[in-house]
Amino acid sequence: MTTSAINIKDYLKEIQQQSDILLDKYLPSVELEPKILHEAMRYSVMAGGKRLRPILAYSAYEYCGGSDFADNAPISFAMPALEMVHTYSLIHDDLPCMDDDDLRRGLPTCHKKFDEATAVLAGDALHDVAFELLAKTGSVEVIAELAHAIGTFGMIGGQIADVEAEGKDVTADDVILIHTRKTGALLRASVRIGAILAGANDKNLEKLSIYGAKIGLAFQIIDDILDIEGDQEVLGKAVGADSDHQKATYPKAVGLDKAREDAQKLIRDANALFDDKEDNILKHIANYIAQRKM
Amino acid sequence: MTTSAINIKDYLKEIQQQSDILLDKYLPSVELEPKILHEAMRYSVMAGGKRLRPILAYSAYEYCGGSDFADNAPISFAMPALEMVHTYSLIHDDLPCMDDDDLRRGLPTCHKKFDEATAVLAGDALHDVAFELLAKTGSVEVIAELAHAIGTFGMIGGQIADVEAEGKDVTADDVILIHTRKTGALLRASVRIGAILAGANDKNLEKLSIYGAKIGLAFQIIDDILDIEGDQEVLGKAVGADSDHQKATYPKAVGLDKAREDAQKLIRDANALFDDKEDNILKHIANYIAQRKM
Repeated sequence: MTTSAINIKDYLKEIQQQSDILLDKYLPSVELEPKILHEAMRYSVMAGGKRLRPILAYSAYEYCGGSDFADNAPISFAMPALEMVHTYSLIHDDLPCMDDDDLRRGLPTCHKKFDEATAVLAGDALHDVAFELLAKTGSVEVIAELAHAIGTFGMIGGQIADVEAEGKDVTADDVILIHTRKTGALLRASVRIGAILAGANDKNLEKLSIYGAKIGLAFQIIDDILDIEGDQEVLGKAVGADSDHQKATYPKAVGLDKAREDAQKLIRDANALFDDKEDNILKHIANYIAQRKM
Repeated sequence: MTTSAINIKDYLKEIQQQSDILLDKYLPSVELEPKILHEAMRYSVMAGGKRLRPILAYSAYEYCGGSDFADNAPISFAMPALEMVHTYSLIHDDLPCMDDDDLRRGLPTCHKKFDEATAVLAGDALHDVAFELLAKTGSVEVIAELAHAIGTFGMIGGQIADVEAEGKDVTADDVILIHTRKTGALLRASVRIGAILAGANDKNLEKLSIYGAKIGLAFQIIDDILDIEGDQEVLGKAVGADSDHQKATYPKAVGLDKAREDAQKLIRDANALFDDKEDNILKHIANYIAQRKM
C-alpha cells in the first residue's frame, strides 16, 4: 500500500478487513472441542472493535520498509496476536470482580453472554494463542516485547492500579501512570513490534517508540473524554461508566477543557517527530485518533 | 548430576531447591509496584509444591545430554516458566466461578488471601512472565510447544471439560481425555521442552513424549486416588473435594482398585520405554510418582 495521497478511511478499512481475515483464520474453529470456549473467544474478538493494534503494527511495519505481506509473513501473525491480547484484557477487565461491565462493543460482555468460568478461560486462551502465533514469527524479540508490555510493569500493572484508584482523589500524574501502563504499553508495543518485524534501524525504532507512547496516552485521554460526552450508540458501550465506577480519569484530574488540550498536544508532539512535509500513514493515524468519536 | 547410584530423594530435593532459587530470581520483586500483585504472585508460587514440572524438564534435559546448567542457560529460564504456568492455572482453577477452593498447599487460595481481582490478575501475570522467560531461551520452538500444551487443545480445554463434566456420568475414556489435557499436556510439554533445549534427536524426543504422556496420566489418576484416601495433612488440601464437587475422576469411572491398577500399568509402560538395565532419573521419577503420597 503506498502512502501517497492517503485516504485514511479506506486505508483503515482495508487493514481492518485484513485483520478480520487473519483473526478468523487463526482463532480455533467452533467445529472443534471445546466448542463453547472457541465460541466465546470468537464472540468477543469478532464483536467488532477498531483493530487499532493490528493497524498500528502494520503501519509501523510499512513505515519502516516492511514489504512482505504474504500469508505467512511474520507481520501476518503479529497482527491477530495483538488483537487477541487486547480482547483477552477486555474480557478479564469486564469480569464482575473487576469493572463488572455488562456491555462491550454494543453487545453483552463475555461473562454475560456465556458465564464467568467461560469468560476467564476464553481470556486465558486468547492470551495463549497470541503467544503461539507470535512464535510463528520466529522472533523471540517480539515475544519478549509483548510479554513485557502486557505484564505487571505494563498492562496488568495498569489494570490493578486502575482498580485500586477507584473512588480516590488522583492527580494528573497518577492518571498518566495508569493510562501509560493500562492502554499505552500495548499500543506502543504494537508500533514497536511492527517496526522490529520490518527490521527497523535503532533510530526509527526509538522514534516510533516515542510516537507510540504519545498516541497511546492521547488515545486513553480521549477515551476518558468520550466516556463523558460521547454517543453511546456510536461507542457501543455505556457512557458515564467511568463516573459510575469512580474511575481515575484524566478529565477528573484536570477538567474537560485541559484534557482536550493535552490530548491534542500529545497528537501534535507525535506528528512533530516526522518532517513537516512528510505525508505518512502514522501521522494520519495520529490525527484519526485525535478526531475519533468511538 | 550423574545418574549412577541415584538417591531419588536427594536428587529431587536438589532440583526443588534450584527451582526455588530461580523462581525467586525471576518473580518480580515485592519492592516494586504493583506491590500487591507481586506479593500475590509470590504468595502462590512460593507456597510450596512439588516443582514437578521443572523437575521433569531438568531431568529430560539431562537425559538427552544437556550439560549447561549455568545461570543463563536456556533450561534455567524454562524451569521457573513451567512452574509459573502451573501456578497460574491453579490460581484461576481455584476461583469462585470455577472450583471455588479455599485451600491450596495448606494455605488459603490466592483469592481468599487477597481478593478475586488480584487473583485473576496474578494468574494472568504469571502466565505472562512465563513467556517472557521462555523468550530468553532464544527458542521459538519451546514457546510454541508450551503455548500449544496449555491452550484450548491442552490445559485450558481440559479445565473447561472438567467444569462441564461435574455432576455427570462419565466413562473412563471421558476422564482420560480430561486428564490428558488438563494435567497431562503440561507435564508432557515439560519433558519435551527439557529435551528440546538439550538438542534431543527425533528418536529421543518421540520416546520422551510417550513417557511424558504416560506419567502425566498416571499422575492425575493417582491425584484422584489421593483425593479419596490421601492424608489431608500431607496433601495440604482438602480430601474429598472431587467428590464434593461431583468431579469426573478416574476412580469414579472405573472404581478404586482398577484405578490403582491402571496407574501402575502406566508407570510400568513408561519405564518399559527404557532398557531394563538402564538406571536413569526418568525411571526414578516415574516410580516416585507411582508411590507419591502428596
